[in-house]
Amino acid sequence: MTNNPKGTITVVSAHSADFVWRAGGAIALYHDLGYQVRVLCLSYGERGESARLWKQGRTLDEIKAIRRFEAEQAAEILGAQVRFFDAGDYPLETTKELQDEIVQEFREHRPEFILTHSLTDPYNADHPRTTEFVLECRILAQAHGYPSDFPVIGAPPVFLYEPHQPEQCNFQVDVLLNITPVFERKRKAMECMAAQEHLWAYYTDVAKRRGVQAGRNSGGSIQYGEAYQRVYPYVGEVLV
Amino acid sequence: MTNNPKGTITVVSAHSADFVWRAGGAIALYHDLGYQVRVLCLSYGERGESARLWKQGRTLDEIKAIRRFEAEQAAEILGAQVRFFDAGDYPLETTKELQDEIVQEFREHRPEFILTHSLTDPYNADHPRTTEFVLECRILAQAHGYPSDFPVIGAPPVFLYEPHQPEQCNFQVDVLLNITPVFERKRKAMECMAAQEHLWAYYTDVAKRRGVQAGRNSGGSIQYGEAYQRVYPYVGEVLV
Amino acid sequence: MTNNPKGTITVVSAHSADFVWRAGGAIALYHDLGYQVRVLCLSYGERGESARLWKQGRTLDEIKAIRRFEAEQAAEILGAQVRFFDAGDYPLETTKELQDEIVQEFREHRPEFILTHSLTDPYNADHPRTTEFVLECRILAQAHGYPSDFPVIGAPPVFLYEPHQPEQCNFQVDVLLNITPVFERKRKAMECMAAQEHLWAYYTDVAKRRGVQAGRNSGGSIQYGEAYQRVYPYVGEVLV
Amino acid sequence: MTNNPKGTITVVSAHSADFVWRAGGAIALYHDLGYQVRVLCLSYGERGESARLWKQGRTLDEIKAIRRFEAEQAAEILGAQVRFFDAGDYPLETTKELQDEIVQEFREHRPEFILTHSLTDPYNADHPRTTEFVLECRILAQAHGYPSDFPVIGAPPVFLYEPHQPEQCNFQVDVLLNITPVFERKRKAMECMAAQEHLWAYYTDVAKRRGVQAGRNSGGSIQYGEAYQRVYPYVGEVLV
Amino acid sequence: MTNNPKGTITVVSAHSADFVWRAGGAIALYHDLGYQVRVLCLSYGERGESARLWKQGRTLDEIKAIRRFEAEQAAEILGAQVRFFDAGDYPLETTKELQDEIVQEFREHRPEFILTHSLTDPYNADHPRTTEFVLECRILAQAHGYPSDFPVIGAPPVFLYEPHQPEQCNFQVDVLLNITPVFERKRKAMECMAAQEHLWAYYTDVAKRRGVQAGRNSGGSIQYGEAYQRVYPYVGEVLV
Amino acid sequence: MTNNPKGTITVVSAHSADFVWRAGGAIALYHDLGYQVRVLCLSYGERGESARLWKQGRTLDEIKAIRRFEAEQAAEILGAQVRFFDAGDYPLETTKELQDEIVQEFREHRPEFILTHSLTDPYNADHPRTTEFVLECRILAQAHGYPSDFPVIGAPPVFLYEPHQPEQCNFQVDVLLNITPVFERKRKAMECMAAQEHLWAYYTDVAKRRGVQAGRNSGGSIQYGEAYQRVYPYVGEVLV
Repeated sequence: MTNNPKGTITVVSAHSADFVWRAGGAIALYHDLGYQVRVLCLSYGERGESARLWKQGRTLDEIKAIRRFEAEQAAEILGAQVRFFDAGDYPLETTKELQDEIVQEFREHRPEFILTHSLTDPYNADHPRTTEFVLECRILAQAHGYPSDFPVIGAPPVFLYEPHQPEQCNFQVDVLLNITPVFERKRKAMECMAAQEHLWAYYTDVAKRRGVQAGRNSGGSIQYGEAYQRVYPYVGEVLV
Repeated sequence: MTNNPKGTITVVSAHSADFVWRAGGAIALYHDLGYQVRVLCLSYGERGESARLWKQGRTLDEIKAIRRFEAEQAAEILGAQVRFFDAGDYPLETTKELQDEIVQEFREHRPEFILTHSLTDPYNADHPRTTEFVLECRILAQAHGYPSDFPVIGAPPVFLYEPHQPEQCNFQVDVLLNITPVFERKRKAMECMAAQEHLWAYYTDVAKRRGVQAGRNSGGSIQYGEAYQRVYPYVGEVLV
Repeated sequence: MTNNPKGTITVVSAHSADFVWRAGGAIALYHDLGYQVRVLCLSYGERGESARLWKQGRTLDEIKAIRRFEAEQAAEILGAQVRFFDAGDYPLETTKELQDEIVQEFREHRPEFILTHSLTDPYNADHPRTTEFVLECRILAQAHGYPSDFPVIGAPPVFLYEPHQPEQCNFQVDVLLNITPVFERKRKAMECMAAQEHLWAYYTDVAKRRGVQAGRNSGGSIQYGEAYQRVYPYVGEVLV
Repeated sequence: MTNNPKGTITVVSAHSADFVWRAGGAIALYHDLGYQVRVLCLSYGERGESARLWKQGRTLDEIKAIRRFEAEQAAEILGAQVRFFDAGDYPLETTKELQDEIVQEFREHRPEFILTHSLTDPYNADHPRTTEFVLECRILAQAHGYPSDFPVIGAPPVFLYEPHQPEQCNFQVDVLLNITPVFERKRKAMECMAAQEHLWAYYTDVAKRRGVQAGRNSGGSIQYGEAYQRVYPYVGEVLV
Repeated sequence: MTNNPKGTITVVSAHSADFVWRAGGAIALYHDLGYQVRVLCLSYGERGESARLWKQGRTLDEIKAIRRFEAEQAAEILGAQVRFFDAGDYPLETTKELQDEIVQEFREHRPEFILTHSLTDPYNADHPRTTEFVLECRILAQAHGYPSDFPVIGAPPVFLYEPHQPEQCNFQVDVLLNITPVFERKRKAMECMAAQEHLWAYYTDVAKRRGVQAGRNSGGSIQYGEAYQRVYPYVGEVLV
Repeated sequence: MTNNPKGTITVVSAHSADFVWRAGGAIALYHDLGYQVRVLCLSYGERGESARLWKQGRTLDEIKAIRRFEAEQAAEILGAQVRFFDAGDYPLETTKELQDEIVQEFREHRPEFILTHSLTDPYNADHPRTTEFVLECRILAQAHGYPSDFPVIGAPPVFLYEPHQPEQCNFQVDVLLNITPVFERKRKAMECMAAQEHLWAYYTDVAKRRGVQAGRNSGGSIQYGEAYQRVYPYVGEVLV
């Protein structure tokens, strides 16, 4: 269990770069707030999200190594620990063994909240499969009868980060997170993904758009944002 | 404009008792936090929600007076100011004049957020009409060109409180508010509605149910709750 | 109030022929069960649904007279009383006066249930306007404070009949009514609409299709059906 | 096949106590109407829904035995036969063998209708998995080519009982069943679940709330209710 | 009626600048294809969308004149005719007179298709009100009995252009229009709106994002796009 | 890879007759336009959709042979090539091996677009399972890292054909295809399915109904139609 006084937040990423484009701002913000941030990469995205490397004639093992290296660099910039499961992608297979690993991870690190993919995505079957899998792992980690060396967890909120084409994924914007203070680091982390340069500008534009909308919804002026959907209701003593 | 250092929250109630059953907890909580709470009762619910008084043979004017008296008592217990518009109910008519009064009210008091009814309700046409009306008044209050002695407002969040039969109203639970610290006052406020005694127990049970669910969603134990739906995304520097 | 021992059912039709195509089977079935069936035609459909008559060069008054005559014939075949309100169509205007007339009609005749149009229809603005209007009239008829010589009504179910293009109208099939025993009369009633001959075959096919589906959903064999959507939950001592 | 003259109704419960909280009223009502009621418990809920027993330090086998005993007691009070499949929970695995057992059960007992869980539930992955599984078993039991010693079944309706947090599960209330005549037995059956005492009050309150709503939707006064969602349209000669 | 051999397309804009941000690309494309493009501005957006001008201390009449001038300039760059109705904004009132003017406009110009706003928008009540109004005007223009000097129209498709915050407006992306060939002109037209400079960059980014998505959905590479939602199904001899 | 100058369209059918009832018109139209049409029958529908043959006492092998023969005949009439995978039905199992076969098929034949089943169907579990499977196979065929002798494919549109009970399957009508020119051949192809004679008339009526609706939506007159739902947005230089 972490010694971190603020606690842990956990990001589950189907492929090794997803966490950067979609949740890089939240990761950096929570790192700066003093949280331990755990990034769990189920695969390297070696088959489905490494087109440029394949075109260069790399082997599968080389591609995995490169993707791992890039993700480690990005995680370091954002202030996150990263753990790789090498479960394979396109298709990602969510085996019983992987399930137990994730459940034990949740039990051991007891995240304050969990970030993962959207509930549907007609462009990427690995993403919603990861989401469904994460939601079930969280439920198992809550069950007293599930075998583990660690105690059960409570009810950490789950936030879904933005998919590539949100309207096609029924993505619902519940939270607009102001990531202005850490955007430069998110940009640097994105630039670690050398093989996906076309996405640097795209996700910079997404951040600007979500920033404008955050301003509209708060009556203020916000430069960069990230959008999230809640899975469970917010509980608290104030209306937020 | 209010001299209240914390600011104002505003509750728009189609009929004079709605604010008690549906938002009594939030009102008391925010009063205790130091906010000025404005309750705007568009009508007294004199025709549609006063069956017992009609059966007693009261006149329309008597019923309005009784309903007003009860609402004033309840508001006092909860710590709210209450303003009556006497716009008539069943059906409630949202005239241009009423619209301007509400816009000016929003401009003058500049609510931090607004509470009102659900977006649909097949059992009560006045409720969704009020919601649609409130959303438009808020938009008009934001417009620089809308004539007023007061400056434009920003973008206050809008929370919708729980209708009587939430599943039939497509009510979505985004927030479960812990109202345990103030529940006894909400109960006392409900008891001011002498003619609707059957609802005291019903809304006490609703509060218990929402409390149990709040506990489930937070991993803690919460006795009484109120449910709310957000209209606009939450904007902030943390994920909530 | 009716002397009919079984009670009344009420059909509210935006235009004078809607009740035949969409609810002719239900009307005939309930007539045969001993109910008084009241058909309320808000308009004659004189402007929007009488293309052939306009092409023949008829005047507005002639068209209204013809449409009324046809509707009366059809109602007689089905066993219904028909009442015309001549409120105008395309657009249908649902005035306060019309509202009061319908509320009083509901108060006086106390329908066991009410049939009307679908909740949305991008091809026909009068239809969903009628539905919204009927739902509100029913609510007003339930209110003790609404002025009337008749007592309040209870909570009659509302069933929505099938629009012309159900998938475009978010029409949900909750009930498949077996109209086989009365289909020949529905066909005869349809044939009273001399100016809309193209619809005779269309709605015969619809009835066959709904019959096949009724068979599929009951494990039996049913020849002709009508589809309905419920607005409010069914209440009873058995699961249906 | 049953000798019961009225026929059989079948309840499929992911865990051994679900049928009590969610469908206890329907079971008792149908028993009293003369039906044979079959309850199929896919698992004992030993891992996911027995927190108190785990805290007491019981072994897995003890917990299963206790849960079985409690379910048998509850079933007896309600008038149901109960069959256990011991398929494991959290996660429940719906194997080919289990599928065939359920198909043969449906073929042999030919239920008039089937009760099971909701279509989605972000708090409990076993529940919607059971629902999807039951719907497919029913389809297989309808297929002439599916190998069996028993004849194919017709098209029994499927009703979904209420999940713990209905709004989060997109639960739609299509039927409000009046369970007042049998509520005392449902309460006694709930009390058999010694380890889940906190749910006795919760589901008593749910029953009261659904009773109030049943009254509202029928214009009468009903004390206790259960809510159900239909999967397939109702088919009949009357509008219900 | 137009002498234009290709026919007319019609854009209905609640406020005088909407057509530029949301449909400028489509307008320029269709102008270049040889169509007459009619832009109908129901209001100047003088009260709700001219914040900068109000802050400059302009009068209502000055603001209307400036907004009109800007819209005329933009329309000229895009190749459209523009007609102003000066119906007032915030709130826009869709009177019977305005309705008749639009119906007659549709009758006279017989658009091949119509562009307008989204079906819902919690940030802007004038937009969905315009959409609902346009859909009804189109229906009235189809009715043989609606009085007019022009013949009825057929069934022109309606496309809804993208609102400011699409996910909050349930905006569904059915069509991604490649506007690359005309984007420079759209940009120039946007720059006519001197008082809304902050939107130039925003809608340039939107166009880039829709372009990337258009590429993703077609397997090609597209620089700039506009998104549209269809109201009615596409009809044709090929699958598109 | 095909030598066909126009390219290929591919239809994936869970059972051997689905492609005829649901997409026969599109197949014949595209054949006539010069496309190669590939029909992939994952199973023969031997267990679930051959009730009459089972009642005749045929063996499983006989039924498969008959169903194959009928499908081949129908495909020939429509102008399609048909490939059988014999993967078993009720339930259809979508194994890794089958997945790879379909991916390689897509890679080799590079369809212009793909036709398959609806996203949900509570009456037939094989249908939505096929759809989900096809969408994932298409994604895998797009991935550079997926092993294959053939190059990656682009982004072929996917159209979903109409299920038996569209409203129960949330089927959305995005396209109404005019199949009048080829309907006689579709009818002949349907008649090859000797064991499902009851469906000939049913799907003839469906075609007529969709034809009438196609006329309504285009302002013309169309005799026979087929309905399709798009999965991905249309991309192009014109609004369709």
